[in-house]
Amino acid sequence: MMNTILQHKSIRKYKSNNVSNQLLAKILNAGIRASTTGNMQVYSIIVSKEEQIKQKLWEAHFKQNMVLQAPVILTFCADFNRFNKWCVQRKAVPGYDNFLSFFTAAIDTLLVAQNVALAAESEGLGICYLGTTTYMAESIIEILKLPKFVVPVTTLTLGYPDENPPLTDRLPLESVVHFETYKDYSEKDIDIAYSVKEALPQTQELLKINETETLAQIFTEKRYTKKDNIAFSEALLKVIEKQGFLNNE
Amino acid sequence: MMNTILQHKSIRKYKSNNVSNQLLAKILNAGIRASTTGNMQVYSIIVSKEEQIKQKLWEAHFKQNMVLQAPVILTFCADFNRFNKWCVQRKAVPGYDNFLSFFTAAIDTLLVAQNVALAAESEGLGICYLGTTTYMAESIIEILKLPKFVVPVTTLTLGYPDENPPLTDRLPLESVVHFETYKDYSEKDIDIAYSVKEALPQTQELLKINETETLAQIFTEKRYTKKDNIAFSEALLKVIEKQGFLNNE
Repeated sequence: MMNTILQHKSIRKYKSNNVSNQLLAKILNAGIRASTTGNMQVYSIIVSKEEQIKQKLWEAHFKQNMVLQAPVILTFCADFNRFNKWCVQRKAVPGYDNFLSFFTAAIDTLLVAQNVALAAESEGLGICYLGTTTYMAESIIEILKLPKFVVPVTTLTLGYPDENPPLTDRLPLESVVHFETYKDYSEKDIDIAYSVKEALPQTQELLKINETETLAQIFTEKRYTKKDNIAFSEALLKVIEKQGFLNNE
Repeated sequence: MMNTILQHKSIRKYKSNNVSNQLLAKILNAGIRASTTGNMQVYSIIVSKEEQIKQKLWEAHFKQNMVLQAPVILTFCADFNRFNKWCVQRKAVPGYDNFLSFFTAAIDTLLVAQNVALAAESEGLGICYLGTTTYMAESIIEILKLPKFVVPVTTLTLGYPDENPPLTDRLPLESVVHFETYKDYSEKDIDIAYSVKEALPQTQELLKINETETLAQIFTEKRYTKKDNIAFSEALLKVIEKQGFLNNE
Protein backbone atom coordinates (compact mmCIF):
# COMPACT_ATOMS: atom_id res chain seq x y z
CA MET A 1 0.00 0.00 0.00
CA MET A 2 2.56 2.53 1.19
CA ASN A 3 4.80 1.45 -1.66
CA THR A 4 2.10 2.08 -4.26
CA ILE A 5 1.46 5.53 -2.84
CA LEU A 6 5.15 6.41 -2.62
CA GLN A 7 5.88 5.19 -6.15
CA HIS A 8 3.14 7.23 -7.84
CA LYS A 9 4.14 8.94 -11.06
CA SER A 10 1.84 10.31 -13.73
CA ILE A 11 2.00 8.18 -16.87
CA ARG A 12 1.55 9.94 -20.20
CA LYS A 13 2.71 7.14 -22.55
CA TYR A 14 0.79 3.87 -22.73
CA LYS A 15 1.23 0.48 -24.40
CA SER A 16 -1.48 -0.53 -26.86
CA ASN A 17 -2.66 -3.40 -24.59
CA ASN A 18 -6.28 -3.18 -23.56
CA VAL A 19 -7.35 -3.18 -19.94
CA SER A 20 -9.62 -6.19 -19.45
CA ASN A 21 -13.20 -5.62 -18.31
CA GLN A 22 -12.51 -7.84 -15.34
CA LEU A 23 -9.54 -5.77 -14.18
CA LEU A 24 -11.45 -2.56 -14.78
CA ALA A 25 -14.37 -3.80 -12.67
CA LYS A 26 -11.96 -4.78 -9.89
CA ILE A 27 -10.45 -1.30 -9.87
CA LEU A 28 -13.78 0.52 -9.99
CA ASN A 29 -15.18 -1.70 -7.23
CA ALA A 30 -12.22 -0.63 -5.10
CA GLY A 31 -12.94 2.96 -6.09
CA ILE A 32 -16.43 2.99 -4.65
CA ARG A 33 -15.24 1.83 -1.23
CA ALA A 34 -14.08 5.42 -0.65
CA SER A 35 -15.82 7.43 2.05
CA THR A 36 -18.92 9.24 0.79
CA THR A 37 -21.07 11.90 2.47
CA GLY A 38 -23.93 10.20 4.30
CA ASN A 39 -23.31 7.18 2.06
CA MET A 40 -25.14 9.02 -0.72
CA GLN A 41 -22.53 8.17 -3.40
CA VAL A 42 -23.33 11.30 -5.35
CA TYR A 43 -20.98 10.59 -8.27
CA SER A 44 -20.85 8.69 -11.53
CA ILE A 45 -17.91 7.28 -13.45
CA ILE A 46 -17.98 7.33 -17.25
CA VAL A 47 -15.75 4.69 -18.88
CA SER A 48 -14.82 5.70 -22.44
CA LYS A 49 -12.94 3.30 -24.71
CA GLU A 50 -14.43 3.85 -28.18
CA GLU A 51 -12.21 5.63 -30.64
CA GLN A 52 -14.91 8.10 -31.63
CA ILE A 53 -15.61 9.24 -28.06
CA LYS A 54 -11.92 9.34 -27.20
CA GLN A 55 -11.27 11.53 -30.23
CA LYS A 56 -13.83 14.05 -29.00
CA LEU A 57 -12.49 13.92 -25.45
CA TRP A 58 -8.97 14.42 -26.81
CA GLU A 59 -10.08 17.61 -28.51
CA ALA A 60 -11.79 18.82 -25.32
CA HIS A 61 -8.70 18.04 -23.23
CA PHE A 62 -6.46 20.41 -25.21
CA LYS A 63 -5.40 17.54 -27.54
CA GLN A 64 -3.14 15.98 -24.95
CA ASN A 65 -1.69 12.85 -26.56
CA MET A 66 -2.35 10.49 -23.68
CA VAL A 67 -6.11 10.86 -24.13
CA LEU A 68 -5.86 9.19 -27.52
CA GLN A 69 -3.16 6.73 -26.50
CA ALA A 70 -4.59 5.42 -23.23
CA PRO A 71 -7.02 2.53 -23.80
CA VAL A 72 -9.41 3.81 -21.12
CA ILE A 73 -10.58 7.30 -20.18
CA LEU A 74 -12.42 7.63 -16.86
CA THR A 75 -14.45 10.80 -16.34
CA PHE A 76 -15.48 11.29 -12.71
CA CYS A 77 -18.63 13.34 -12.29
CA ALA A 78 -20.39 14.97 -9.37
CA ASP A 79 -23.86 13.45 -9.78
CA PHE A 80 -27.05 14.31 -7.90
CA ASN A 81 -29.23 13.24 -10.84
CA ARG A 82 -29.53 9.62 -9.70
CA PHE A 83 -30.14 10.61 -6.07
CA ASN A 84 -32.74 13.23 -7.03
CA LYS A 85 -34.61 10.73 -9.21
CA TRP A 86 -34.63 8.26 -6.32
CA CYS A 87 -36.03 10.92 -3.97
CA VAL A 88 -38.83 11.79 -6.37
CA GLN A 89 -39.70 8.11 -6.89
CA ARG A 90 -39.84 7.68 -3.11
CA LYS A 91 -42.14 10.58 -2.25
CA ALA A 92 -39.27 12.76 -1.03
CA VAL A 93 -38.60 16.34 -2.19
CA PRO A 94 -34.89 16.75 -2.98
CA GLY A 95 -33.23 20.04 -2.00
CA TYR A 96 -29.92 19.48 -3.77
CA ASP A 97 -29.96 22.15 -6.46
CA ASN A 98 -27.50 24.40 -4.65
CA PHE A 99 -23.77 25.09 -4.40
CA LEU A 100 -23.22 23.11 -1.22
CA SER A 101 -24.68 20.00 -2.84
CA PHE A 102 -22.43 20.46 -5.87
CA PHE A 103 -19.38 20.79 -3.64
CA THR A 104 -20.40 17.79 -1.51
CA ALA A 105 -20.74 15.73 -4.68
CA ALA A 106 -17.38 16.99 -5.94
CA ILE A 107 -15.73 15.84 -2.69
CA ASP A 108 -17.31 12.38 -3.03
CA THR A 109 -16.16 12.25 -6.65
CA LEU A 110 -12.54 13.12 -5.94
CA LEU A 111 -12.17 10.56 -3.14
CA VAL A 112 -13.40 7.87 -5.52
CA ALA A 113 -11.04 9.09 -8.24
CA GLN A 114 -8.02 8.83 -5.96
CA ASN A 115 -9.08 5.36 -4.81
CA VAL A 116 -9.35 4.31 -8.46
CA ALA A 117 -5.94 5.84 -9.23
CA LEU A 118 -4.23 3.92 -6.42
CA ALA A 119 -6.11 0.68 -7.09
CA ALA A 120 -5.05 0.92 -10.76
CA GLU A 121 -1.43 1.57 -9.85
CA SER A 122 -1.37 -1.32 -7.41
CA GLU A 123 -2.50 -3.55 -10.32
CA GLY A 124 0.40 -2.41 -12.51
CA LEU A 125 -1.50 0.19 -14.51
CA GLY A 126 -0.51 3.82 -14.98
CA ILE A 127 -2.72 6.88 -14.63
CA CYS A 128 -2.67 10.59 -15.32
CA TYR A 129 -5.11 13.19 -14.00
CA LEU A 130 -6.43 15.72 -16.51
CA GLY A 131 -6.86 19.19 -15.00
CA THR A 132 -8.51 20.26 -18.23
CA THR A 133 -11.76 18.60 -17.06
CA THR A 134 -12.96 21.67 -15.16
CA TYR A 135 -11.73 24.08 -17.86
CA MET A 136 -13.65 22.27 -20.57
CA ALA A 137 -16.60 21.01 -18.55
CA GLU A 138 -19.15 22.38 -21.02
CA SER A 139 -17.69 20.43 -23.96
CA ILE A 140 -17.33 17.28 -21.86
CA ILE A 141 -20.98 17.53 -20.77
CA GLU A 142 -21.96 17.58 -24.44
CA ILE A 143 -19.64 14.73 -25.47
CA LEU A 144 -20.65 12.45 -22.59
CA LYS A 145 -24.31 13.53 -22.66
CA LEU A 146 -24.35 14.49 -18.99
CA PRO A 147 -27.85 15.49 -17.82
CA LYS A 148 -28.77 18.20 -15.32
CA PHE A 149 -27.22 17.73 -11.86
CA VAL A 150 -24.14 16.04 -13.33
CA VAL A 151 -20.83 17.95 -13.62
CA PRO A 152 -17.46 16.46 -14.69
CA VAL A 153 -14.88 17.11 -11.97
CA THR A 154 -11.77 15.18 -12.99
CA THR A 155 -10.54 12.65 -15.54
CA LEU A 156 -8.03 9.80 -15.41
CA THR A 157 -6.28 8.27 -18.38
CA LEU A 158 -5.65 4.59 -17.70
CA GLY A 159 -3.50 1.92 -19.30
CA TYR A 160 -0.28 -0.09 -19.14
CA PRO A 161 2.70 2.27 -18.77
CA ASP A 162 5.08 2.66 -21.69
CA GLU A 163 7.43 4.92 -19.78
CA ASN A 164 9.01 5.01 -16.35
CA PRO A 165 9.59 8.64 -15.43
CA PRO A 166 11.38 9.60 -12.22
CA LEU A 167 9.38 10.66 -9.16
CA THR A 168 8.33 14.30 -9.30
CA ASP A 169 9.80 16.63 -6.69
CA ARG A 170 7.66 17.79 -3.79
CA LEU A 171 8.01 20.71 -1.38
CA PRO A 172 9.52 19.73 1.99
CA LEU A 173 6.77 18.24 4.19
CA GLU A 174 7.39 20.96 6.81
CA SER A 175 6.48 23.58 4.23
CA VAL A 176 2.93 22.25 3.70
CA VAL A 177 2.13 21.06 7.25
CA HIS A 178 1.16 23.34 10.13
CA PHE A 179 0.83 22.37 13.78
CA GLU A 180 -2.26 23.31 15.80
CA THR A 181 -2.97 26.46 13.75
CA TYR A 182 -1.72 28.00 10.49
CA LYS A 183 1.66 29.71 10.77
CA ASP A 184 1.88 32.19 7.94
CA TYR A 185 5.02 32.11 5.78
CA SER A 186 7.86 34.58 6.26
CA GLU A 187 10.05 35.51 3.28
CA LYS A 188 12.60 33.05 4.59
CA ASP A 189 10.00 30.28 4.92
CA ILE A 190 9.09 30.77 1.26
CA ASP A 191 12.76 30.63 0.23
CA ILE A 192 13.18 27.39 2.18
CA ALA A 193 10.01 25.88 0.71
CA TYR A 194 10.99 26.47 -2.91
CA SER A 195 14.81 26.38 -2.85
CA VAL A 196 15.19 22.70 -3.73
CA LYS A 197 12.66 22.92 -6.58
CA GLU A 198 14.31 26.07 -7.92
CA ALA A 199 17.74 24.44 -7.90
CA LEU A 200 16.67 21.36 -9.91
CA PRO A 201 18.42 20.91 -13.29
CA GLN A 202 14.99 20.67 -15.01
CA THR A 203 14.05 24.06 -13.53
CA GLN A 204 17.20 25.60 -15.00
CA GLU A 205 16.29 23.99 -18.31
CA LEU A 206 12.75 25.44 -18.15
CA LEU A 207 14.07 28.92 -17.48
CA LYS A 208 16.23 28.71 -20.59
CA ILE A 209 13.42 27.38 -22.80
CA ASN A 210 10.89 29.92 -21.55
CA GLU A 211 13.38 32.78 -21.41
CA THR A 212 12.09 33.83 -17.99
CA GLU A 213 14.03 34.93 -14.93
CA THR A 214 12.14 32.86 -12.35
CA LEU A 215 10.19 29.60 -12.21
CA ALA A 216 7.22 31.43 -10.68
CA GLN A 217 7.00 33.54 -13.84
CA ILE A 218 6.57 30.39 -15.93
CA PHE A 219 3.46 29.63 -13.88
CA THR A 220 1.98 33.13 -13.94
CA GLU A 221 2.93 34.05 -17.53
CA LYS A 222 2.76 30.71 -19.39
CA ARG A 223 1.08 27.81 -17.61
CA TYR A 224 -1.67 29.26 -15.44
CA THR A 225 -2.26 32.84 -16.49
CA LYS A 226 -4.71 35.21 -14.90
CA LYS A 227 -6.48 35.63 -18.24
CA ASP A 228 -7.08 31.88 -18.65
CA ASN A 229 -8.05 31.46 -15.01
CA ILE A 230 -10.69 34.16 -15.31
CA ALA A 231 -12.11 32.74 -18.52
CA PHE A 232 -12.24 29.22 -17.04
CA SER A 233 -13.70 30.52 -13.76
CA GLU A 234 -16.58 32.08 -15.65
CA ALA A 235 -17.07 28.96 -17.76
CA LEU A 236 -17.03 26.65 -14.73
CA LEU A 237 -19.47 28.76 -12.71
CA LYS A 238 -21.75 28.92 -15.75
CA VAL A 239 -21.65 25.12 -16.04
CA ILE A 240 -22.42 24.66 -12.34
CA GLU A 241 -25.40 26.98 -12.77
CA LYS A 242 -26.56 25.38 -16.03
CA GLN A 243 -26.39 21.91 -14.49
CA GLY A 244 -28.74 23.12 -11.76
CA PHE A 245 -26.48 23.74 -8.77
CA LEU A 246 -26.78 27.47 -8.13
CA ASN A 247 -30.36 27.82 -6.90
CA ASN A 248 -29.17 29.01 -3.52
CA GLU A 249 -32.50 30.26 -2.23
CA MET B 1 -3.07 -2.07 -1.25
CA MET B 2 -6.32 -3.44 -2.66
CA ASN B 3 -7.01 -4.97 0.72
CA THR B 4 -6.63 -1.65 2.53
CA ILE B 5 -8.99 0.01 0.06
CA LEU B 6 -11.57 -2.79 0.24
CA GLN B 7 -11.50 -2.91 4.04
CA HIS B 8 -12.14 0.82 4.56
CA LYS B 9 -14.67 1.68 7.24
CA SER B 10 -15.11 5.02 8.96
CA ILE B 11 -13.93 4.85 12.57
CA ARG B 12 -15.76 7.00 15.11
CA LYS B 13 -14.37 5.48 18.33
CA TYR B 14 -10.68 5.70 19.14
CA LYS B 15 -8.32 4.31 21.76
CA SER B 16 -6.53 6.87 23.92
CA ASN B 17 -3.11 5.94 22.44
CA ASN B 18 -1.28 8.79 20.78
CA VAL B 19 -0.13 8.63 17.17
CA SER B 20 3.65 9.07 17.22
CA ASN B 21 5.17 12.00 15.36
CA GLN B 22 7.22 9.55 13.35
CA LEU B 23 4.16 7.63 12.15
CA LEU B 24 2.31 10.85 11.44
CA ALA B 25 5.21 12.13 9.31
CA LYS B 26 5.29 8.83 7.42
CA ILE B 27 1.59 9.11 6.62
CA LEU B 28 1.72 12.77 5.63
CA ASN B 29 4.76 12.14 3.46
CA ALA B 30 2.75 9.49 1.64
CA GLY B 31 -0.11 11.99 1.38
CA ILE B 32 1.89 14.55 -0.57
CA ARG B 33 2.85 11.98 -3.23
CA ALA B 34 -0.67 12.45 -4.65
CA SER B 35 -1.02 14.03 -8.07
CA THR B 36 -1.20 17.83 -7.96
CA THR B 37 -2.09 20.32 -10.68
CA GLY B 38 1.12 21.45 -12.40
CA ASN B 39 2.97 20.23 -9.30
CA MET B 40 1.86 23.42 -7.55
CA GLN B 41 0.80 21.63 -4.33
CA VAL B 42 -1.78 24.28 -3.54
CA TYR B 43 -2.87 22.84 -0.20
CA SER B 44 -1.90 22.84 3.45
CA ILE B 45 -2.52 20.29 6.19
CA ILE B 46 -3.19 21.48 9.73
CA VAL B 47 -2.36 18.92 12.42
CA SER B 48 -4.29 19.62 15.63
CA LYS B 49 -3.60 17.62 18.80
CA GLU B 50 -3.90 20.15 21.64
CA GLU B 51 -6.97 19.79 23.81
CA GLN B 52 -7.85 23.47 23.54
CA ILE B 53 -7.86 23.53 19.73
CA LYS B 54 -9.67 20.19 19.52
CA GLN B 55 -12.36 21.51 21.84
CA LYS B 56 -12.99 24.44 19.50
CA LEU B 57 -12.94 22.20 16.43
CA TRP B 58 -15.37 19.85 18.17
CA GLU B 59 -17.81 22.70 18.63
CA ALA B 60 -17.44 23.75 14.99
CA HIS B 61 -17.96 20.17 13.78
CA PHE B 62 -21.44 19.90 15.34
CA LYS B 63 -19.95 18.44 18.56
CA GLN B 64 -19.33 15.06 16.97
CA ASN B 65 -17.68 12.92 19.66
CA MET B 66 -14.87 11.57 17.54
CA VAL B 67 -13.35 15.06 17.21
CA LEU B 68 -12.65 15.10 20.93
CA GLN B 69 -11.76 11.43 21.15
CA ALA B 70 -9.37 11.08 18.21
CA PRO B 71 -5.79 12.01 19.20
CA VAL B 72 -5.20 13.82 15.89
CA ILE B 73 -7.40 16.08 13.76
CA LEU B 74 -6.18 16.83 10.24
CA THR B 75 -7.74 19.79 8.46
CA PHE B 76 -7.01 19.80 4.73
CA CYS B 77 -7.08 23.27 3.18
CA ALA B 78 -7.06 24.60 -0.35
CA ASP B 79 -4.09 26.99 -0.12
CA PHE B 80 -2.89 29.51 -2.70
CA ASN B 81 -1.39 31.73 0.02
CA ARG B 82 2.02 30.05 -0.04
CA PHE B 83 2.11 29.94 -3.85
CA ASN B 84 1.06 33.59 -4.17
CA LYS B 85 3.73 34.69 -1.71
CA TRP B 86 6.33 32.75 -3.70
CA CYS B 87 5.20 34.43 -6.93
CA VAL B 88 5.46 37.89 -5.42
CA GLN B 89 8.94 37.15 -4.00
CA ARG B 90 10.01 35.95 -7.45
CA LYS B 91 8.87 38.94 -9.52
CA ALA B 92 5.78 37.13 -10.80
CA VAL B 93 2.22 38.49 -10.66
CA PRO B 94 -0.13 35.76 -9.39
CA GLY B 95 -3.58 35.53 -11.00
CA TYR B 96 -5.10 33.01 -8.59
CA ASP B 97 -7.80 35.04 -6.86
CA ASN B 98 -10.63 33.40 -8.80
CA PHE B 99 -13.05 30.50 -8.57
CA LEU B 100 -11.11 28.19 -10.90
CA SER B 101 -8.03 28.53 -8.71
CA PHE B 102 -10.07 27.74 -5.61
CA PHE B 103 -11.51 24.65 -7.27
CA THR B 104 -8.09 23.55 -8.57
CA ALA B 105 -6.71 23.86 -5.05
CA ALA B 106 -9.70 21.95 -3.65
CA ILE B 107 -9.00 19.08 -6.08
CA ASP B 108 -5.33 18.99 -5.01
CA THR B 109 -6.42 19.02 -1.38
CA LEU B 110 -8.87 16.14 -1.67
CA LEU B 111 -6.41 13.87 -3.49
CA VAL B 112 -3.92 14.41 -0.67
CA ALA B 113 -6.62 13.75 1.94
CA GLN B 114 -7.53 10.41 0.39
CA ASN B 115 -3.86 9.41 0.14
CA VAL B 116 -3.46 10.25 3.83
CA ALA B 117 -6.62 8.28 4.71
CA LEU B 118 -5.37 5.16 2.92
CA ALA B 119 -1.80 5.49 4.18
CA ALA B 120 -3.17 5.79 7.73
CA GLU B 121 -5.40 2.75 7.31
CA SER B 122 -2.55 0.69 5.89
CA GLU B 123 -0.59 1.51 9.08
CA GLY B 124 -3.40 0.23 11.30
CA LEU B 125 -4.98 3.58 12.09
CA GLY B 126 -8.64 4.49 11.62
CA ILE B 127 -10.06 7.62 10.02
CA CYS B 128 -13.34 9.43 9.58
CA TYR B 129 -14.08 12.27 7.16
CA LEU B 130 -15.99 15.25 8.55
CA GLY B 131 -18.44 16.71 6.03
CA THR B 132 -19.07 19.53 8.47
CA THR B 133 -15.83 21.19 7.30
CA THR B 134 -17.49 23.02 4.41
CA TYR B 135 -20.61 23.85 6.43
CA MET B 136 -18.59 25.46 9.19
CA ALA B 137 -15.68 26.81 7.14
CA GLU B 138 -15.96 30.29 8.62
CA SER B 139 -15.56 29.06 12.21
CA ILE B 140 -12.72 26.73 11.24
CA ILE B 141 -10.89 29.60 9.52
CA GLU B 142 -11.07 31.53 12.78
CA ILE B 143 -10.02 28.61 14.98
CA LEU B 144 -7.09 27.59 12.77
CA LYS B 145 -6.14 31.20 11.90
CA LEU B 146 -6.30 30.58 8.16
CA PRO B 147 -5.19 33.63 6.15
CA LYS B 148 -6.59 34.87 2.85
CA PHE B 149 -6.38 32.33 -0.01
CA VAL B 150 -6.76 29.41 2.41
CA VAL B 151 -10.09 27.56 2.69
CA PRO B 152 -10.72 24.36 4.72
CA VAL B 153 -12.10 21.66 2.41
CA THR B 154 -12.21 18.48 4.48
CA THR B 155 -11.14 17.06 7.83
CA LEU B 156 -9.97 13.64 8.99
CA THR B 157 -10.09 12.35 12.53
CA LEU B 158 -7.17 9.98 13.08
CA GLY B 159 -6.26 7.44 15.74
CA TYR B 160 -6.17 3.79 16.73
CA PRO B 161 -9.61 2.20 16.21
CA ASP B 162 -11.63 1.22 19.25
CA GLU B 163 -14.42 -0.32 17.20
CA ASN B 164 -14.69 -2.64 14.22
CA PRO B 165 -17.90 -1.77 12.39
CA PRO B 166 -19.06 -3.82 9.38
CA LEU B 167 -18.41 -2.56 5.86
CA THR B 168 -20.97 0.02 4.73
CA ASP B 169 -23.26 -0.97 1.86
CA ARG B 170 -22.65 0.50 -1.60
CA LEU B 171 -24.89 0.80 -4.65
CA PRO B 172 -24.23 -1.89 -7.27
CA LEU B 173 -21.21 -0.90 -9.36
CA GLU B 174 -23.37 -0.99 -12.53
CA SER B 175 -25.57 1.72 -11.03
CA VAL B 176 -22.74 4.27 -10.75
CA VAL B 177 -20.72 3.38 -13.87
CA HIS B 178 -21.67 4.37 -17.42
CA PHE B 179 -20.05 3.14 -20.62
CA GLU B 180 -18.94 5.57 -23.32
CA THR B 181 -21.58 8.17 -22.47
CA TYR B 182 -24.09 8.78 -19.64
CA LYS B 183 -27.20 6.60 -19.84
CA ASP B 184 -29.89 8.34 -17.86
CA TYR B 185 -31.78 6.28 -15.27
CA SER B 186 -35.22 4.84 -15.95
CA GLU B 187 -37.62 4.29 -13.04
CA LYS B 188 -36.61 0.65 -13.13
CA ASP B 189 -32.88 1.53 -13.05
CA ILE B 190 -33.49 3.58 -9.91
CA ASP B 191 -35.39 0.72 -8.28
CA ILE B 192 -32.54 -1.65 -9.08
CA ALA B 193 -29.90 0.80 -7.80
CA TYR B 194 -31.53 1.29 -4.41
CA SER B 195 -33.37 -2.00 -3.77
CA VAL B 196 -30.58 -3.69 -1.79
CA LYS B 197 -29.99 -0.60 0.37
CA GLU B 198 -33.72 -0.23 1.00
CA ALA B 199 -34.08 -3.85 2.06
CA LEU B 200 -31.28 -3.73 4.66
CA PRO B 201 -32.37 -4.40 8.27
CA GLN B 202 -30.75 -1.12 9.37
CA THR B 203 -32.86 0.75 6.82
CA GLN B 204 -36.02 -0.78 8.28
CA GLU B 205 -34.78 0.24 11.71
CA LEU B 206 -34.19 3.83 10.51
CA LEU B 207 -37.69 4.06 9.09
CA LYS B 208 -39.14 3.04 12.46
CA ILE B 209 -36.98 5.48 14.44
CA ASN B 210 -37.63 8.38 12.08
CA GLU B 211 -41.28 7.50 11.50
CA THR B 212 -40.94 8.06 7.77
CA GLU B 213 -42.30 6.03 4.89
CA THR B 214 -39.15 5.93 2.77
CA LEU B 215 -35.39 6.10 3.28
CA ALA B 216 -35.17 8.97 0.79
CA GLN B 217 -37.39 11.03 3.09
CA ILE B 218 -34.88 10.60 5.92
CA PHE B 219 -32.31 12.29 3.67
CA THR B 220 -34.52 15.11 2.44
CA GLU B 221 -36.40 15.78 5.71
CA LYS B 222 -33.83 15.00 8.41
CA ARG B 223 -30.23 14.59 7.30
CA TYR B 224 -29.67 16.93 4.37
CA THR B 225 -32.58 19.33 4.21
CA LYS B 226 -33.07 22.00 1.58
CA LYS B 227 -33.11 24.66 4.30
CA ASP B 228 -29.71 23.61 5.69
CA ASN B 229 -28.24 23.18 2.21
CA ILE B 230 -29.23 26.69 1.22
CA ALA B 231 -27.86 28.21 4.44
CA PHE B 232 -24.57 26.32 4.05
CA SER B 233 -24.36 27.17 0.34
CA GLU B 234 -24.55 30.86 1.15
CA ALA B 235 -22.03 30.49 3.97
CA LEU B 236 -19.57 28.54 1.82
CA LEU B 237 -19.75 30.94 -1.12
CA LYS B 238 -19.28 33.84 1.29
CA VAL B 239 -16.18 32.15 2.71
CA ILE B 240 -14.76 31.51 -0.77
CA GLU B 241 -15.27 35.18 -1.56
CA LYS B 242 -13.90 36.42 1.75
CA GLN B 243 -10.78 34.28 1.37
CA GLY B 244 -10.14 35.99 -1.95
CA PHE B 245 -11.30 33.48 -4.55
CA LEU B 246 -14.19 35.20 -6.32
CA ASN B 247 -12.47 38.02 -8.19
CA ASN B 248 -13.48 36.55 -11.52
CA GLU B 249 -12.68 39.55 -13.67
